[in-house]
Amino acid sequence: MSFIACDWGTSRLRLRWRGPDGGCRETASDEGAARLAALGGDRAEAFAGALRRGLGRLGAPEGLPVVVSGMAGSSIGWRELPYARLPFALDGSGVLSEQVLPGVHLVSGVRGVSDMMRGEETQALGWAEQSGAALPAMATLVLPGTHSKHLRVESGAVTAIATFLTGELFEVLGRHSVLRHSIDAEADRQADSGDGDAGAFDEGVASSGRMALGAALFQVRVRQVLHGRPPAANRAFLSGLLIGAELRALPGDDTPIVLAAGSGLRESYSRAAAGCGLGPRWSAIEVDDLCELGQRRLWRRWSGG
Amino acid sequence: MSFIACDWGTSRLRLRWRGPDGGCRETASDEGAARLAALGGDRAEAFAGALRRGLGRLGAPEGLPVVVSGMAGSSIGWRELPYARLPFALDGSGVLSEQVLPGVHLVSGVRGVSDMMRGEETQALGWAEQSGAALPAMATLVLPGTHSKHLRVESGAVTAIATFLTGELFEVLGRHSVLRHSIDAEADRQADSGDGDAGAFDEGVASSGRMALGAALFQVRVRQVLHGRPPAANRAFLSGLLIGAELRALPGDDTPIVLAAGSGLRESYSRAAAGCGLGPRWSAIEVDDLCELGQRRLWRRWSGG
Repeated sequence: MSFIACDWGTSRLRLRWRGPDGGCRETASDEGAARLAALGGDRAEAFAGALRRGLGRLGAPEGLPVVVSGMAGSSIGWRELPYARLPFALDGSGVLSEQVLPGVHLVSGVRGVSDMMRGEETQALGWAEQSGAALPAMATLVLPGTHSKHLRVESGAVTAIATFLTGELFEVLGRHSVLRHSIDAEADRQADSGDGDAGAFDEGVASSGRMALGAALFQVRVRQVLHGRPPAANRAFLSGLLIGAELRALPGDDTPIVLAAGSGLRESYSRAAAGCGLGPRWSAIEVDDLCELGQRRLWRRWSGG
Repeated sequence: MSFIACDWGTSRLRLRWRGPDGGCRETASDEGAARLAALGGDRAEAFAGALRRGLGRLGAPEGLPVVVSGMAGSSIGWRELPYARLPFALDGSGVLSEQVLPGVHLVSGVRGVSDMMRGEETQALGWAEQSGAALPAMATLVLPGTHSKHLRVESGAVTAIATFLTGELFEVLGRHSVLRHSIDAEADRQADSGDGDAGAFDEGVASSGRMALGAALFQVRVRQVLHGRPPAANRAFLSGLLIGAELRALPGDDTPIVLAAGSGLRESYSRAAAGCGLGPRWSAIEVDDLCELGQRRLWRRWSGG
């Protein structure tokens, strides 16, 4: 059951091949969908060329099928695919797919009445694949990033999607609003790891529970102007505030919450979750393999494997 | 009791003189504090020159005292003044002031433990001046704008300040975030008046009560991508959402809420207030005269008039 796993994001193209010995090759480039769409000209040719170059770098055997998730199926993608609909079964039976070249299969996004995702549906399938029989009957899967997704999972299907602008608010306010004077915009996002200034991060998480977001944001400036707090601490405060505001919007029942993220976001989201009193419901896993695992689940279904 | 009223904002310089016959002359320029501070060089000279030019355009009699409120007393101003402290008495007795030239009086801002204002304290004094004996014993005065201020007034003093980033979120997200693709960034801000697309504005107000702000913001994009709603309507939705989120943070008691704003914001805030169920507590007044009225109150005190 060998195939090439392709995660085609807005800004990155990632390819991965796992050989029969389990060894894994991977390659990534910045030929994301946004850049290719901006080229103008023949869109399909641009995407086919980028994929060809990527496969060349990967050095996998020729002729393997390619499963493509993410923005390649969007309006800025190779071909715009319709969305599958909620509820979205985690056996992959609801996925819509199209071959854009022989053996190159695009995976559709998924929509509900008032939200949608492209790419995260495959990560959700990967989480189901990884969990096997241990998949919880009810849970919220949190996939943070520029646009953080909360997927409600019930009885083996995604039943609701909610998207939070968390990562984008952090970037845009840090660069373009009055808050940029109060934070260290040029520094690495070390504050996100929670260890840049853990105390300030925790204060941000606490503020998210005490006041409306629009008012709490101004506190970033207040900390600088009235209290002389340094930029790195204010940046950590902003991060804690935005993540805290996101997590406090989770339903207040006792449903388990599963975060899937890389190590930096995993640490800061987990720290914020503890600050929001979500500790007992919380677990966190690495996100890196989920796209490939989800595509494995799909490919097994499609190939009858 | 004649004086020149000067409102020196971040981006605008406004001067007004009311003659003995009650007739009013006014002049405005874009020599705001931010521009003058960016010139470098001798700050006091830059501000004195801009004031001199403004007074020339105004054509008031020479030698009148000038009362200056706003950013001229800030770190980007003519001279940085310390903040007065809460509680801030609306008889003006707590104002700190300094003469930067003979007869040119800067009015200090006001701070609490965790918020501050520069300029709005003078508008609050103006509201007290205008209200006279009808000043409510308890109220929240709402002064919307780039940074919207909510001033809690109790027994003739401001006792708390809360600042909301409402106007700046609207501008920054509309220009720099993914939402820019869904709204009509080039159009006039007609949607803010509530009549661009009143239905979409109301939907935004309703959304602010149904979901966390970070998630509701993404609905601007959902409306475009899934529902094909046009840019002007999505812009009105965003406006309603942000204003609604601000107003829902008002304390849920029965304290009167007094909005002071120009006609466009007055209409949209009042519409949002109705949507939030604040109608019975709500009244709205024109903001334009409040700075001058507040300075009149101060000048009467200072001149023993």
